[in-house]
Amino acid sequence: MRLRSWLFHNFREVSRLFGFEEIDFPVLESEALFIRKAGEEIRDQLYCFEDRGNRRVALRPELTPSLARLVIQKGKSAPLPLKWFAIGQCWRYERMTRGRRREHYQWNMDIIGVPEVTAEAELLSSIITFFKRIGVTASDVGFKVSSRKVLQEVLRSYSVPEDSFGRVCVIIDKIGKIPVEDIKKDLKLAGMSEVAVEDLLQVLSIKSLEKLEEILGDSGEAISDLRQLFSLAEKFGYSEWIQFDASVVRGLAYYTGIVFEGFDREGKLRAICGGGRYDKLLSTFGGDDLPACGFGFGDAVIVELLKEKGLLPKLDHQVENIVCALDSDLQGAAAAVATILREKNQSVDLVLESKPLKWVFKRAARINAQRLILVGLDEWQKGMVSVKILSSGEQYEVKLVELE
Amino acid sequence: MRLRSWLFHNFREVSRLFGFEEIDFPVLESEALFIRKAGEEIRDQLYCFEDRGNRRVALRPELTPSLARLVIQKGKSAPLPLKWFAIGQCWRYERMTRGRRREHYQWNMDIIGVPEVTAEAELLSSIITFFKRIGVTASDVGFKVSSRKVLQEVLRSYSVPEDSFGRVCVIIDKIGKIPVEDIKKDLKLAGMSEVAVEDLLQVLSIKSLEKLEEILGDSGEAISDLRQLFSLAEKFGYSEWIQFDASVVRGLAYYTGIVFEGFDREGKLRAICGGGRYDKLLSTFGGDDLPACGFGFGDAVIVELLKEKGLLPKLDHQVENIVCALDSDLQGAAAAVATILREKNQSVDLVLESKPLKWVFKRAARINAQRLILVGLDEWQKGMVSVKILSSGEQYEVKLVELE
Repeated sequence: MRLRSWLFHNFREVSRLFGFEEIDFPVLESEALFIRKAGEEIRDQLYCFEDRGNRRVALRPELTPSLARLVIQKGKSAPLPLKWFAIGQCWRYERMTRGRRREHYQWNMDIIGVPEVTAEAELLSSIITFFKRIGVTASDVGFKVSSRKVLQEVLRSYSVPEDSFGRVCVIIDKIGKIPVEDIKKDLKLAGMSEVAVEDLLQVLSIKSLEKLEEILGDSGEAISDLRQLFSLAEKFGYSEWIQFDASVVRGLAYYTGIVFEGFDREGKLRAICGGGRYDKLLSTFGGDDLPACGFGFGDAVIVELLKEKGLLPKLDHQVENIVCALDSDLQGAAAAVATILREKNQSVDLVLESKPLKWVFKRAARINAQRLILVGLDEWQKGMVSVKILSSGEQYEVKLVELE
Repeated sequence: MRLRSWLFHNFREVSRLFGFEEIDFPVLESEALFIRKAGEEIRDQLYCFEDRGNRRVALRPELTPSLARLVIQKGKSAPLPLKWFAIGQCWRYERMTRGRRREHYQWNMDIIGVPEVTAEAELLSSIITFFKRIGVTASDVGFKVSSRKVLQEVLRSYSVPEDSFGRVCVIIDKIGKIPVEDIKKDLKLAGMSEVAVEDLLQVLSIKSLEKLEEILGDSGEAISDLRQLFSLAEKFGYSEWIQFDASVVRGLAYYTGIVFEGFDREGKLRAICGGGRYDKLLSTFGGDDLPACGFGFGDAVIVELLKEKGLLPKLDHQVENIVCALDSDLQGAAAAVATILREKNQSVDLVLESKPLKWVFKRAARINAQRLILVGLDEWQKGMVSVKILSSGEQYEVKLVELE
């Protein structure tokens, strides 16, 4: 919990620095909210049930659909752009592996209402600000960046129908995870010709914008979005963190533009975070589309990374004072001392039992107490208590009214 | 969310002042963890399902059973006492009413390993510290305090079997909520004679410790526990907040000693919080019993109370700076300015679109920005930006390197 609180505190602090407001959604949602026809992993792993009223419900696997619904509900009353973040628990029904649990948390930041690539650039800046705060550098972590429009332009040139686009992206995201022959088979099932499949796989291997431009030409939106993003990255000051990589498409069906993925440069871990633009999501829930982009950042892989890099913070339980009555008749007096200190915003572990001093010192060490306040009869009758500074061993008596 | 964050911040701050450590548990648990044979409301309202692996599961209705299991797991390795708090989401399957929703949060504080009443006194002190922090006084809120041992002594004198004790308590908790004739019927079904039922109801109406002592005598644990608690309350300094009331038993089967309930003195709302001692809970989960007590404090009724009393805090979204490029070519420059300010721990809402100044001022007002930083071509070429203090209208140019 200390580690989680530290992580969430950093998520919140970065979100605050970027002027985002915190939101949250129900944990249990209607199953329909998460069901899309794209064969996504997220759908296969849905933690779903039938409730006591015979409704199909699910523990949320992600936050974005709930966010889309909220944006639609707020409708025209919420002035754009919306800059929202959430730290929400999410579930998946699958076997557990390293950095992948059934229950986890996701930090999400989303910008609704900004069509320009500045929004994606701002999101990347916030994640990188987070990494820097916790000691992660550009030599530990990088971002692969591409655009779904790259694929779209390739598919369009082979007359692949628009509505199989999401499905194709989900298949492509499995490259490296399942055999390439299965990928090819799935792509053909999605309506692509043999030639189109080969050319597509060719394009996906491209790792430079120049090379991409040779193939797609310089007039398309894919190239201009990506060029703009890399130019903004320079101004934001995080160029060294990002690289173009056409193989990144992300596994969710709803992305439409820039997509990105944070990865550890040693290649030991799963993706650390990922996101992109999803300009067409709202209409799938019956709303008017709005330009939107966002990312999800889990709480599991980052902890694995911090372990790998020796960057886990030392987070001990800490209490400023331990207060102890030297006689059980003085328990009330010790309570009064604790109250005085707490009113001065000092944390106090009050010893609630009659225990030998040896036990009290052991407890003081375990909770990293700074001071031991002893309430003894002689001092108490003079309106005083005994204070021992535990780091130095220094000990003195002080009047209760002067206790700080 | 701003209100919730403020509430949780105060829960956490008070827990820190009392030296408690934060814990959490799974949201989805095995249903068996919550099923007791006492006819509790909490069982009837269990939000339960069958999962994809045909396991009976439930969204937790409360945190205490999970805590009990954790204590058993930690076994002898965790040095006592444990002082733990949690702020956890809980669910109930029922119709929603004022201050009662299907999904809510509960602040729990528990002390494991302390048999003395000092533990209950400490818990009451922490709740009262919380109330004081948020502006609630002893004339707004009080605590009814009793002990399950009062009932136990009465039942024992009528030879009611020990194992129907929990069930009797759950029935008694319904007094005032269902007709008294139904209560009497249920008590008889639980094995009590007509005379015992009448005498019990008589005892439950007692509101003074002196009167209770006349009936129970002065030798029992009930009286001595309660006397000690009221004496400690004086030393802690919260006597005016608490009163003895034999009718308080709480609706959970597992309490064994002192029980308490926070209520609004105007009598408009449901109980605000409640807790007590549960020394026998661990053995019901197969562990060795340990002395334990704790409380649950929901996030719903307290908000109703704050509304009633006009104590809801004013919590606006606030951002220190809004940064805007005066020309779309300067978007990168504005990003650089935002980065500089954020590195100095200043929050920045970066305008990501090309918008007229009128729009920017409107947004600045809505997000309560303190300063507007404008990035214009002439100033930028001199390495400067224009700063406008929005409260005073004061405007000046400042070198980028001197921007604080």
